[in-house]
Amino acid sequence: MYSVSMPKKVIIGVMGAGETASEQDMQLAFLLGQSIAKEGWVLLSGGRSVGVMDAVNKGAKSANGLTIGIMPRQETDVSDAVDIPVITDMGSARNNVNVLSSDVVVACGIGGAGSISEIALAVKSKKTVILLHTGEDCERLFLKIGKDFIKIAEDPTQAILLIKQII
Amino acid sequence: MYSVSMPKKVIIGVMGAGETASEQDMQLAFLLGQSIAKEGWVLLSGGRSVGVMDAVNKGAKSANGLTIGIMPRQETDVSDAVDIPVITDMGSARNNVNVLSSDVVVACGIGGAGSISEIALAVKSKKTVILLHTGEDCERLFLKIGKDFIKIAEDPTQAILLIKQII
Amino acid sequence: MYSVSMPKKVIIGVMGAGETASEQDMQLAFLLGQSIAKEGWVLLSGGRSVGVMDAVNKGAKSANGLTIGIMPRQETDVSDAVDIPVITDMGSARNNVNVLSSDVVVACGIGGAGSISEIALAVKSKKTVILLHTGEDCERLFLKIGKDFIKIAEDPTQAILLIKQII
Amino acid sequence: MYSVSMPKKVIIGVMGAGETASEQDMQLAFLLGQSIAKEGWVLLSGGRSVGVMDAVNKGAKSANGLTIGIMPRQETDVSDAVDIPVITDMGSARNNVNVLSSDVVVACGIGGAGSISEIALAVKSKKTVILLHTGEDCERLFLKIGKDFIKIAEDPTQAILLIKQII
Repeated sequence: MYSVSMPKKVIIGVMGAGETASEQDMQLAFLLGQSIAKEGWVLLSGGRSVGVMDAVNKGAKSANGLTIGIMPRQETDVSDAVDIPVITDMGSARNNVNVLSSDVVVACGIGGAGSISEIALAVKSKKTVILLHTGEDCERLFLKIGKDFIKIAEDPTQAILLIKQII
Repeated sequence: MYSVSMPKKVIIGVMGAGETASEQDMQLAFLLGQSIAKEGWVLLSGGRSVGVMDAVNKGAKSANGLTIGIMPRQETDVSDAVDIPVITDMGSARNNVNVLSSDVVVACGIGGAGSISEIALAVKSKKTVILLHTGEDCERLFLKIGKDFIKIAEDPTQAILLIKQII
Repeated sequence: MYSVSMPKKVIIGVMGAGETASEQDMQLAFLLGQSIAKEGWVLLSGGRSVGVMDAVNKGAKSANGLTIGIMPRQETDVSDAVDIPVITDMGSARNNVNVLSSDVVVACGIGGAGSISEIALAVKSKKTVILLHTGEDCERLFLKIGKDFIKIAEDPTQAILLIKQII
Repeated sequence: MYSVSMPKKVIIGVMGAGETASEQDMQLAFLLGQSIAKEGWVLLSGGRSVGVMDAVNKGAKSANGLTIGIMPRQETDVSDAVDIPVITDMGSARNNVNVLSSDVVVACGIGGAGSISEIALAVKSKKTVILLHTGEDCERLFLKIGKDFIKIAEDPTQAILLIKQII
């Protein structure tokens, strides 16, 4: 039977706030998504049509990237910049799918409880997480809990450099 | 902020046996995957490196399709023809993710218990399932249980025609 | 530190239709639940407030049994005869939790697609399933797919005897 | 058909470290489990045979409580003080089931990444979490993220009083 050989695609997961995201965090997410796409990496996110999730996907599409959204429910509004919505219908338990499916996770902006759970689940599964403007309290807790898996980035450019070191 | 408009990609889920798949069912799966890719549709499957799952992905890649694999475990061997493995780590519960994420489901070949669960879960969520050589006993049960959601195809060509009518 | 030794409780899972259950299947479920409780076994079910799920729990409580309901959603109505609702919030993917958590599974009455998925998922995980009045088409398919894991019972009394042989 | 009326059982979820738990945290967990059982409440936990999970179940059984363990895998060792293991086979995604199934959640001792994810998932679903000796960094982050859902207890007695105010 026919055989195929191809390089495995790199998948970068970006996690961040929905409705509560600040304008600044969404701009950061847009730039990050754009940079991820320019590297030829696949963007994976929570896929919703609001906040960091929406912005990072729009950034990736602005650079013709491929975007995967891991959706909590069948009824959840999907960002119109998501190419492939994966419908888990398992609510916040899908946060574990987000991190397990990513080669590296970037937490982008001041996150709510959902984003914090994703950082924690990533550390739990020994996946490296880059914290990008997630705030001092978040950095302090996770550097204590899982310092081997936590990196701090000051801007999207530094996040991209860190990803290249990890993959 | 930047805005994107794009047609939603069509996602076709193909379900079938792993280790127990016959050579004939794998050939059928290869042709089906090839036809799906030629239509420009995304192929979604259980993503494993054996049986119908492997063959349908190889078929799709032979026609330069995009392939998504919904994996049961982190440790599961991924078909080397899967572009994007989504790691659910939820075992057979991922079968529900397979069907919910597909616009149309095709059950390909004589399936084992896993494939039967996928047909049942698809009917449960009112997703149309095309049965392609799944055997008489399987057809009889599901035509009784969920006839509004069950279609029978004799070959990949007919399956493609049925999909076009549904989407 | 304090140490505890106790016999592991036997957990019997009963699966069956919700809204579409016949009056006869609900009577069967009530008797089955009652018999399970009289044996001192824990009853596990899908926990909803309708059909076979509701009836089997009411039967178990009529004999002072302990009842666990594995709920698909936070919003799902729980049978008032369920002692312990476990809220999965993962929709039909919870069907896999139902069967994995049961020592033996009984499929009771003519089931819909949800019940068929549970029989299939049980066979997939090599759990024995007792088919009690599930209909000829269902029996035929599963005897073909997984005969090592399928037993047929004519009435609740025979189901109880089969369970005793298995556990 | 037979009808049953009964008061709904109160379910208290206790989350905490496994292998990394300190002796002190395990003693705290034992006392907490004992107190929960004395109130007639059901104890729910992650169910494993180590650390806080094991200790809290042993405490509850020392006072004849009923104990439910929500297990990550079929292969996971179950604490011998768990009455009812619920086998999710969904790894850390089961952390969401833990919190959704509890009327109140208590985080007991200095937790690892898994426990942090459970506090976050509880806040995400608007479930009240009592922090009992979880450390200053953990308290600070969650009081910022979800102060309406976070209570601080100094000892098991105070945790029990807080639970009574909440339920």
